[in-house]
Amino acid sequence: MAGPPRLFVDAAGLAAGQTVALTGGQTHYLAHVLRRRPGDPVRVFNGHDGEWLARLEGLSGRGGSARLDRRTRPQPPPAASPWLCFALVKRGPLDLIAGKATELGCTRLIPVTTRFTDMPRLSIGRLRVQAVEAAEQCGRLTVPAVDEPVGLAERLTDWPAERSLIVCAERGAAPPLTTVAAALAGRPAALLIGPEGGFSPEELDALRKLDFAHLCHLGPRVLRAETAAIAALACWQAVAGDWADGRTEPAADAPF
Amino acid sequence: MAGPPRLFVDAAGLAAGQTVALTGGQTHYLAHVLRRRPGDPVRVFNGHDGEWLARLEGLSGRGGSARLDRRTRPQPPPAASPWLCFALVKRGPLDLIAGKATELGCTRLIPVTTRFTDMPRLSIGRLRVQAVEAAEQCGRLTVPAVDEPVGLAERLTDWPAERSLIVCAERGAAPPLTTVAAALAGRPAALLIGPEGGFSPEELDALRKLDFAHLCHLGPRVLRAETAAIAALACWQAVAGDWADGRTEPAADAPF
Repeated sequence: MAGPPRLFVDAAGLAAGQTVALTGGQTHYLAHVLRRRPGDPVRVFNGHDGEWLARLEGLSGRGGSARLDRRTRPQPPPAASPWLCFALVKRGPLDLIAGKATELGCTRLIPVTTRFTDMPRLSIGRLRVQAVEAAEQCGRLTVPAVDEPVGLAERLTDWPAERSLIVCAERGAAPPLTTVAAALAGRPAALLIGPEGGFSPEELDALRKLDFAHLCHLGPRVLRAETAAIAALACWQAVAGDWADGRTEPAADAPF
Repeated sequence: MAGPPRLFVDAAGLAAGQTVALTGGQTHYLAHVLRRRPGDPVRVFNGHDGEWLARLEGLSGRGGSARLDRRTRPQPPPAASPWLCFALVKRGPLDLIAGKATELGCTRLIPVTTRFTDMPRLSIGRLRVQAVEAAEQCGRLTVPAVDEPVGLAERLTDWPAERSLIVCAERGAAPPLTTVAAALAGRPAALLIGPEGGFSPEELDALRKLDFAHLCHLGPRVLRAETAAIAALACWQAVAGDWADGRTEPAADAPF
């Protein structure tokens, strides 16, 4: 995106004059890919205190630092942004889901296991890296939370009653996602995506019994899990989320 | 997807009793990944004659064949399905665009070069392989056409006047895609996605002057090119395309 590189920093209470630490990954990218040097400007955010213009200080393979100059964007108030609840799939598709869901404004990534889950060894840290890199690139000022994976049934036992669960069902009678999204526009929601092979009949029956669950379909073709996750989040944001308004500012500067 | 493996075959006029050739890639997958043997059932489609139940005959590393038994799905009439016009990006994202656009029902892939195009050496054949594999997996009975890449301006000089061009603009004033899609629902359309870095101001000015072009935005975040392509196609199909109806049949059996 345009402007100085954006960097997520794991630091609290950003303030003018403060020096924040950069990771080895960030400094390697800055020095060897973007050819940046000490003194060059960067933009820094921590998910809480808005976006700050900063100057690079040290840059080494083990890390570096930047000194905060001034705040260039305020932190927006928390929005009713969608969560994404998704069955574990293979590593490549999981990376895609984490990165693209972040670009699409998801604020919480909830991996679950289901009857037909193709269960890999999942690194939460790896998903978080994908989410951070996508947040740096897409201009948002937050990074989605990444939950530890649990069984779907267990995850739903303490589900927050006010947050609708939009179940993207691969088979069976259901309305299109747009119909469900229009009815729930502006309210807290999570999209649930099954594994390759879909949910089991027993899982779908159990989901239908939940007061907060709404089944929907994603069209006449069988989508791969990662395609379904990206498509569902995009449609939710377009119909019920933060795509609704006309745009008058460059996207990179739009508050969100 | 459920049922026998689906195979796209490059053969004309499918008929009962006909023997069709399979590629080495198909037979390798059938024999070594799916562990299929001669006599096992497969489903075959050629983009014109519906879907056929067939039996595997020979299976070798260089190819094989299947003998058609009976037609199990008729070929649907051509739908007003969206085209996707996209600036060339790197190989990984290009593969994603071709595969996911196929899953989402795109019928024509139109790679173009723009002012800020990051131009790799593009293999049309590679894009077609991605499209065929996605068509086999997602249940559709057609494979999108893949055009040779040309400059955007050149491509638009002979643009079919009846097909709207939905320009997904990364910056500048524009309504959301859903507003444009709702106004054009059911009519022929193509979605245009720019490169990383977006369109140049001159390109956007030229696009605004076209009678058949409609600018829109894809929300407040800066999406990567492949994310924008997948998100835009999903939203188009959801709002203006073939996701509109409620579903009563399993997706895999839905006519397409």
